[in-house]
Parts: sequence; structure tokens; C-alpha cells
Amino acid sequence: MVEPGALSDEMLAADAPDDEVRPDDRIDDERHDRENRLKPEYVREVREALEAGDKGAVYDLVEPLHPADIADLIELVGSDERELFAAAITDLMSVDVIAELNDHVRELMMEALEPEAVAAITEQLETDDAVQLLEDLDEEDQQAIIAELEPETAEAVNSALAYPEETAGRLMNRHAMAVPEHLTVGDLIDYLRENGDLTHDFFEVFVVDEQHHPVGTCALNWVLTSPRSVKLTDVMKRDQTLIPVTMDQEEVALMFQKYALISAAVVDDSGRLVGQITVDDIVHIISEEAGEDALLLSGAGDGDINEPIREAYSSRVRWLVANLGTAVVASAIIAFFGAAIEQLVALAVLMPIVASIGGNAGTQTMAVAVRAIATNQLTRANTWRIVWRELRVAVLNGATVAVLIGMAAGAMFGWQMGVVIALAMVINIAVSGLAGVLVPVMFERMGQDPAVASSVFVTMITDSMGFFAFLGLAVAAGLAPLS
Amino acid sequence: MVEPGALSDEMLAADAPDDEVRPDDRIDDERHDRENRLKPEYVREVREALEAGDKGAVYDLVEPLHPADIADLIELVGSDERELFAAAITDLMSVDVIAELNDHVRELMMEALEPEAVAAITEQLETDDAVQLLEDLDEEDQQAIIAELEPETAEAVNSALAYPEETAGRLMNRHAMAVPEHLTVGDLIDYLRENGDLTHDFFEVFVVDEQHHPVGTCALNWVLTSPRSVKLTDVMKRDQTLIPVTMDQEEVALMFQKYALISAAVVDDSGRLVGQITVDDIVHIISEEAGEDALLLSGAGDGDINEPIREAYSSRVRWLVANLGTAVVASAIIAFFGAAIEQLVALAVLMPIVASIGGNAGTQTMAVAVRAIATNQLTRANTWRIVWRELRVAVLNGATVAVLIGMAAGAMFGWQMGVVIALAMVINIAVSGLAGVLVPVMFERMGQDPAVASSVFVTMITDSMGFFAFLGLAVAAGLAPLS
Repeated sequence: MVEPGALSDEMLAADAPDDEVRPDDRIDDERHDRENRLKPEYVREVREALEAGDKGAVYDLVEPLHPADIADLIELVGSDERELFAAAITDLMSVDVIAELNDHVRELMMEALEPEAVAAITEQLETDDAVQLLEDLDEEDQQAIIAELEPETAEAVNSALAYPEETAGRLMNRHAMAVPEHLTVGDLIDYLRENGDLTHDFFEVFVVDEQHHPVGTCALNWVLTSPRSVKLTDVMKRDQTLIPVTMDQEEVALMFQKYALISAAVVDDSGRLVGQITVDDIVHIISEEAGEDALLLSGAGDGDINEPIREAYSSRVRWLVANLGTAVVASAIIAFFGAAIEQLVALAVLMPIVASIGGNAGTQTMAVAVRAIATNQLTRANTWRIVWRELRVAVLNGATVAVLIGMAAGAMFGWQMGVVIALAMVINIAVSGLAGVLVPVMFERMGQDPAVASSVFVTMITDSMGFFAFLGLAVAAGLAPLS
Repeated sequence: MVEPGALSDEMLAADAPDDEVRPDDRIDDERHDRENRLKPEYVREVREALEAGDKGAVYDLVEPLHPADIADLIELVGSDERELFAAAITDLMSVDVIAELNDHVRELMMEALEPEAVAAITEQLETDDAVQLLEDLDEEDQQAIIAELEPETAEAVNSALAYPEETAGRLMNRHAMAVPEHLTVGDLIDYLRENGDLTHDFFEVFVVDEQHHPVGTCALNWVLTSPRSVKLTDVMKRDQTLIPVTMDQEEVALMFQKYALISAAVVDDSGRLVGQITVDDIVHIISEEAGEDALLLSGAGDGDINEPIREAYSSRVRWLVANLGTAVVASAIIAFFGAAIEQLVALAVLMPIVASIGGNAGTQTMAVAVRAIATNQLTRANTWRIVWRELRVAVLNGATVAVLIGMAAGAMFGWQMGVVIALAMVINIAVSGLAGVLVPVMFERMGQDPAVASSVFVTMITDSMGFFAFLGLAVAAGLAPLS
């Protein structure tokens, strides 16, 4: 018999019979590949059953899946098949499945349903999931659904929707486990047993004073390991991290990461407990906020493969048109040196190299700076140290690339051309390095998201400077005339 | 008096006296700004005290900080001041501070210490934090430190280090709370009370059979809300997610996100419980894995502002040199059309526009595809649907941009030039869209990280195709001769 308790090293070393191998029930089974994705063969089988109109077969195929996998499957089948698919597995379309769905897919599915049906789903969700379900819908649809809700749910949803988007107020769950200061461990356990039908998850108990101000936090494992007679105020941690209800979700995510929180009390302006945020509601925010920078920097907007084509087009084309503007500026610089290029076509051949490598160097520095700003590592307290650091890296990079391209161009077009392109390269990479860190810092200080706006400006600077430095130096060196 | 229990709406609505405002003790205090970053004035004060050699003042300034903030502060002061700073706050340099430090900064600080000192720190850490501390050090330093450890710690560290880097085995904590199947809720609570000195955090109890195979998971709040006589096997969740000890940390992070896990049992090849991973160890992995794509796509490597300059230089310059190769290919295409450019310098003026906008369009699609692959949204099951989707978005984008640039170029250089550049733009953006999704998919299928290698190829395709389509069409249209 195994004794309860932490696993000792002896237990780990013990040689249990290997014939009883019990593989993980999720990984590498007949439906999942080794990376826990649904196998294409399985998805194909479901789609074929769907096309054949065999609802029973579809149901049987899908029934063993975890809700999160059903959500994945709904995303994997094409948007034209989704309605049919949902109809075939109505019983399996639990609120857990709906909560796990990609925002865009969920929005489309909810729009296809009657308000009463959406309201029935909303009733079963926790406040934060209900808000997530409703917040992206049109104002009109939203109101129609809220009108169908029970008054209590409607009030909870309305009060959450009253907080600005992407704030703690939208994320929080109003069912925080709040207890008064005088309780003992025994009192708490008795209370929890009597009110046993608590369907809401909680990992910590918040101790509040008479004005509902949190005074400390008790992890459940402390409660379980303490004698009944101990007062909660003696085991609770007084040094707690409180989340203001209006805090931006990105900051909330950073707080959870920085202080390794499992849950946190949310407080209103007067410091009273109004709800809790648990870490499982935060992990997708952490992932989204960290992942969106790559998308924003590239100008892909929301960048979700489930986004309707119309929206993907409109967010991306805006960016391309903005870049068209910066490209035209670079073109104007080339046009200014038109006569030089006419005389020496080698300039036209080499000029994109200087601009292109400068652009790459700028993008590198910008990606580093944007990430450092997003993770609160680059702040007002160390800006100049980081600028200086990036400038040194840029000069080292510039010198290396300049030597390579200078020698190659020198061999092909004469040593003067080699010197001109090498110098232009050092200048452009140094400028790119500076722009790559200064532009995002500037946008951050102006209260803008540096990931959104920096790219266009950095690209314009690196392109224009690349053409200007190279063509200008070539003219200055007497390789070609200005007119 | 406030009754224990979940906050009711009445409580929330109740008008508690507002004069007792108790602001959050971490946000917007004298040391933090509104986004919970250390204020530059405060950091300056610390550095001035440090420069003045006033260790007492430094200590007093730092003493009220949370360990995570002390770690931030160490990162914010320059690398040349860190040793002095650490010496001034020796008492405050707790293991929590060291665990929170940036990898690069911690590595540098550990290298400056004697092996015995590092060993003393390692002794106090949980296995996963100890491994994190040691894994980046040189093999030699690592062995010197391990030699100084207690045999038990050394064995735990060695066995964790035996697992490949970035796997569950490195992340897990061997102190999982494992209990046998026959226990009741009361037995468990009694056991925990008797063994009350459990300093290890746990959020779930793992029920194991006689061979140490996990059979179910009990959340602590279920234990607390159930009567003493209930058997654990009656409250536990049997449908659990088990993490194979060799699973890649990126997959572990995706599992935690997908199934909203708070902790998970780690099992060896024969399915026996060997440890647990808790969500607080995963949040920084989620953030890192999601955030690194922006850095990798830009070729900035590790992209950490604390990375030594030498390392930042070597990872970035490799990328620039690779891009130099692709730029030279594009140059060769331009050189092929040298005679045409000599005759019509407008071609040199306009050609970078086509290449540049194509590059942007390719980067957008690539960022979307890389993110979708990383989050398991783009799989073999829907590749062709997504390729088709991206092609449609690209054609829409191409058509829009083509009309704009075609009209502008037509007005300046004649209608034929307008048609040529418009056509070239549509072709290049369509090709860029295809390359932006197909190249990352191809690398993923080859088992490569699509974020690392895709950019160079996509850039080469978009640049070359931009110049080739534009100059080739111009020659074909008879605007300029090929030779």
C-alpha cells in the first residue's frame, strides 16, 4: 500500500510492474497526434459523415472528445459546415465547448442563434465567460439577449459590461470566496461543508473586514494543513496583490506573472472586494498579449485565421496603404538622384541592398524594444542605457555587414563603390538601430501601443536613409553626377 | 458583521463608508507608477545612494519591496553596478529574488559567486527553480556547484537535468501530493494536519493506485466542501490530463491553456506519477513562447535586453548576413534588367515600391500563419482551407493597392507604366500571400520552428518576385528594351 504524502525518492525509484502501462488518455490516441492536435484523418472522417448526412455517426465520433477538443473541431471544419455540425452534436454543445471557442467562430455561431437560445447558454456561464460571449456582439443583439436573461444574471452582466473593455472588471468573477476576520479554520470548513453546492472554483479565500476591504488571503492548502482552532487571520498572507477593477487586462496579466499569483482579489475605487480573477482566466490573456505583438508589428491586426475575410482585408490593407506612403517617400529620394542612376546603373542594382538590410536591422531592434516595453523591462529608468546598448550592437552589426558587402561590391564595381556602399551600410544600420528603439519608446510615452504604430515609421526611416546615404555618398564621391 | 460566503449582490450594492479609502498597497505608491513599474525617480535615488557608497540608505530604500520588485530593480541598475548593489542588500537577496531574476542577469550574478555560495542558494529552491538556476551555467561551473550540494538535492537536480532541456521533466516539481485510493476526505485532512510543515504549494491532490499510476485528481476546494466520510475516489475527477515527462514545454503550455489546468500530474514512460507542474511555473513559459515569435520572425534571436552585447551581436548578425544573400539575389535580377533601367530611370524609381509592399504583405500573412501554427490552430486538417483564405485576402489587398499605385504612377509616367506597376503589384502580393503561409507550413512539416527560418525565404521570394514582375512586365510591354 502506498502511504499518503509527497512522493519520496524511494517510491520514485521503486520498480513497479511495467506490464501495467497505462498511457495518457489524451496524447497519441486514435484521435490526437503527438502534439495533441486532432488528427487530419479523424477530422476527415467527421466531415465525411457530416456530408453524408449521418448525424448519428458524427455524434458517435465526437462524443468521446473533451469540450476543448470539440471547440477545436468546430474551428477546423469549414465555416459553411459549422451550422450543420452544431446541429448534429446539439447535446454535446455544452457551455464549456462554447467558452473554449475562438472569439470569431463563437460570434458567428451566436449570431445564427435566436436571442432566447443565446440567453439560455449565457445563464449557465460564469459572469466572465458570459461577458466574453456577449461583448463582441452588436449592441442590438446584445440588448435582445440581455432582455431574455434572468434579472440577476442580467444585472451581473450589465454591471460587468459597464467596465471598459479589456479591464479587470470584465475579466473578474463576482463569486469571490469572502469571509470575515473572526473565523477559525474549523468555522470555515464547517461553513463550506454546509454550503457544499459551490460550483464555483476557488483556490484562495479572501478575508475581509467589516467594510469588505480585503485584509489577507488564505491559500486552501494552508487551510487544509492547519488545526481547526487556528484563526484565519493567523494563517493568511497579509501582503496581498489587489487588482483595481479598472486595471487594463495587460497589466493584470503582468501582475499575475510577476507575483506568481493563482488568484487575486479585485477591488473597487474605495478598496472593497468586488470579485476575483483566477489564473486560468489569465493564461489566455498572457498568451494573447504576448503573441499579438508579432501580429501588430507585421500590420496583420487581429491576425486570427478565423477572422472573417472582410475584416482581415480591411485591417491589413490599411497597413499596406500606409506603407505605400512610406515607399513613395523612398521613391522620391531615388527620383532626386535620377540623373546619377541614369549615368551609373550599378547604383540601381546596389541601392535596394542597403535599404533592405537596414530595414532588417531596424526590425530586429524594434522587436526587442517592443517586447521589452510590453514586459515592463524597458522603462523610463533604463531607457538611455538600452538605447546605448542597441546602438553598440547596431554598429557592430553594421561594421560586419559593411565589410562583406563592401568587398563584394568593390570587386564587381571598383573599390570606390565598395567604400561608398560600406559607409552607407554602417550609417543606415546605426540609424536603424537608434530608430528601432527610439520610435517604440516615443510611442509608448505618448500613450500609444508601440507594436501598432512603430513599424511604419521605422521602415520609412530605414528605407529613406538607405537610399539617401548610398546615393548621396556616391554623388559626393564623384561616382555619378547629381544632374 | 459580514457573513462568510460568496459576495451577494446586496453586499456589493451596500454603501460602505467611503472615507475609509484604502488604496492598493502596490499600485501608484511612492515607488511604483500606475502600471506597477518602479518609478525612475526611485531607481535614481537607489543608484545615487549606491554611488555615494551609502549601503545603509540603499538597504532602507529597497527593504519594503516585494522580491519580484527587487529582481526588477537589479535588472534596472546597470550591469557594472549590480555587484555593489547585491553586496549592499545581501540580507534581502532571498531565493525568491533570485528565482525572479532575468535568466541572463542571474547567470552573470551566479558566475560571479563561489560554487559554495550558489550551492547554498540552490539548497533552498524548489527543484524546478534550482534546475533553472543551474541549467544555463557552463558544464564545469554546474558540476562544481552540484558537488557542493547535499546528496539528496544533488540527486534531485541531476535527475531533472537528465531530461532534455525545455521538457516537462525540467519544469516539474517532484513534491506532488500523491495519496492512495482508499482515503476519505477526513483521512486526507488529518494526514495534512499531522504533516503540517508542508512548505510546498499544491492546488490539487493526485489519487494514485498501488503502482503509482494517477487515477484521478481532487481540487482542494472539493475536499473542503465535502463531508469527512466521503471517499476521495467519489469526489475526484477521473478524466485528467497527464503530462509525459518528456513533453516539450511549449506543448505543456498549450495543454494548460487548452484544458484550463491549475496543476497537472507528470508521468514517466510507464505511466507512474513522478511530479507535478503548477500553473505558476507555466505562465512565464506561455508568455515566453508566445512572445518569442515576434523576436524570431525579426531575426533578433533571444531578443532579451539583458542579453550580453556579444551574444546579441552574434545572433543578429547571422540573420543580417543571411538576408544579405537574399538581397544579392534581388540585385542580380535588377542587374539583368540593367539596360532597361538605363533607358528608363522611372523603373529604378518605382521598383522598390513593388518589392517593399509585397514584402509587407508577405510578412503579414507569415505572422498570422506562424501564430496559428504555434497555437495549434493551423494543422494538417485545415491547411488548404487556410491557404485558400490567405490567397483571397492577398488578392483583395493586391487589387486595392494596385489601383492606388497604378493611378499615381499612370499620372506621373504615362498610363502604360500605371498598368505595368498595377499588374506587378497584384502578382507580387498574391505570391507573397501564398509564400507567407506555405513557407511556414513547409518548415513546420519538416520539423523546423517556422518562426526561425521562414522570414529569410519569404523575403527573398517577395523581393525577387517584386523586381522580376515589375521589370519583366515593363520590358514585355515595350516600355524599355532588355538590352
